[in-house]
Amino acid sequence: MSDERKPAVVLVSGGLDSATVLAIAISEGYKPFALSFGYEQGHVYELEAARRVCEAAGVQRHINFPLKLRAFGGSALTADISVPKDRTAEEMDTGIPVTYVPARNTVFLALAAAWAETLNAFDVFIGVNAIDYSGYPDCRPEFIDAFRQLMDVGTKSGVEGSERWNIHTPLISLSKAEIIRVGTALGVDYGLTHSCYDPDENGISCGHCDSCQLRLQGFAEAGLEDPVTYSSR
Amino acid sequence: MSDERKPAVVLVSGGLDSATVLAIAISEGYKPFALSFGYEQGHVYELEAARRVCEAAGVQRHINFPLKLRAFGGSALTADISVPKDRTAEEMDTGIPVTYVPARNTVFLALAAAWAETLNAFDVFIGVNAIDYSGYPDCRPEFIDAFRQLMDVGTKSGVEGSERWNIHTPLISLSKAEIIRVGTALGVDYGLTHSCYDPDENGISCGHCDSCQLRLQGFAEAGLEDPVTYSSR
Repeated sequence: MSDERKPAVVLVSGGLDSATVLAIAISEGYKPFALSFGYEQGHVYELEAARRVCEAAGVQRHINFPLKLRAFGGSALTADISVPKDRTAEEMDTGIPVTYVPARNTVFLALAAAWAETLNAFDVFIGVNAIDYSGYPDCRPEFIDAFRQLMDVGTKSGVEGSERWNIHTPLISLSKAEIIRVGTALGVDYGLTHSCYDPDENGISCGHCDSCQLRLQGFAEAGLEDPVTYSSR
Repeated sequence: MSDERKPAVVLVSGGLDSATVLAIAISEGYKPFALSFGYEQGHVYELEAARRVCEAAGVQRHINFPLKLRAFGGSALTADISVPKDRTAEEMDTGIPVTYVPARNTVFLALAAAWAETLNAFDVFIGVNAIDYSGYPDCRPEFIDAFRQLMDVGTKSGVEGSERWNIHTPLISLSKAEIIRVGTALGVDYGLTHSCYDPDENGISCGHCDSCQLRLQGFAEAGLEDPVTYSSR
């Protein structure tokens, strides 16, 4: 039996958001090609989670693309800067955090588009979120729209006019609690995901970085239990 | 003595065009940070040429960023498709060639922007050329302008409104002969550069691929001798 589904590249980090996006892409009838990045986050737990999430979702092709972003430095996630802990919602809202990776989503989407072109796909799914966006400029709708326009002029399809690109951001206006409810309804096992910026040596989430806090608040608001274990709360 | 020059990231492939762009950036007073990509072109001669060109230009930081684009396939430069030879100008003008690397300049500019952000630089130089562009959609002015707009909305500077990005394309409206004349006037040693898509096992240029042909025609039109050796003409 041949697979007649329309191909789409789905960015899968191993976190809660992208696991939900993958489930949404499949529920909308796309055949997912999953793309993860080893961008030297300082730990491998995110990538292991990405592999588990893709396996559970029945993804047939999953590329883990190595990206040596440490060559550039400039972020707590790629250089030796401490991850902030126990920040209040107000502190998270103030400016761009040190965990911002310069031009990260531009790089990620560019590589997703490169793969999509070789697959003759024009659909890319990314789990950006404008409400919980924590000050990342490249998670905003304006950025996503500018990227779609870039692809329409910068790829074969743009020149030959055959198809228009679609950058799907199904989470962009959802709260963390809403994301968790949608994913739970689609059968996502959040126990397979990893969100912590600063896990311990066994991969156990800290519960105190911005990412853990947003996740825990989301489960609390959704009235659901987070299946992930935390080293402390 | 401190270096007061404004920083700029310059994409340096090792070819004739980017060697000229590097010389132009320096002549305009920028401090160049050179970025090359090991994207598995099938040979190392381009990267060796990039190193020679940067050294000759007095570049202090040159990053050779590894990019495993072969994971995606889809081009004669990254997969096992034959490089076309001895095509006429008319044949080169017809459509997008097999040497097109999907979304390549989007990926290259995204990584240049990532480095630029960590340097607090907002200037990127790229040697795209709209006249000799050989059918690459991501060499057109519309693409460059769309990328600049993307950076203005997708980076710290876009959100904080501090500076606007500038994607410099000094070659965009020049013929190959004009590029060679400009570079020669700025003292570029084109003997250090490498343009061939399909060199022999000693790194000697073939003289027959699109890139060699455009280069040889450019030198002929400029009334100058190409210092590079060719295996045959």
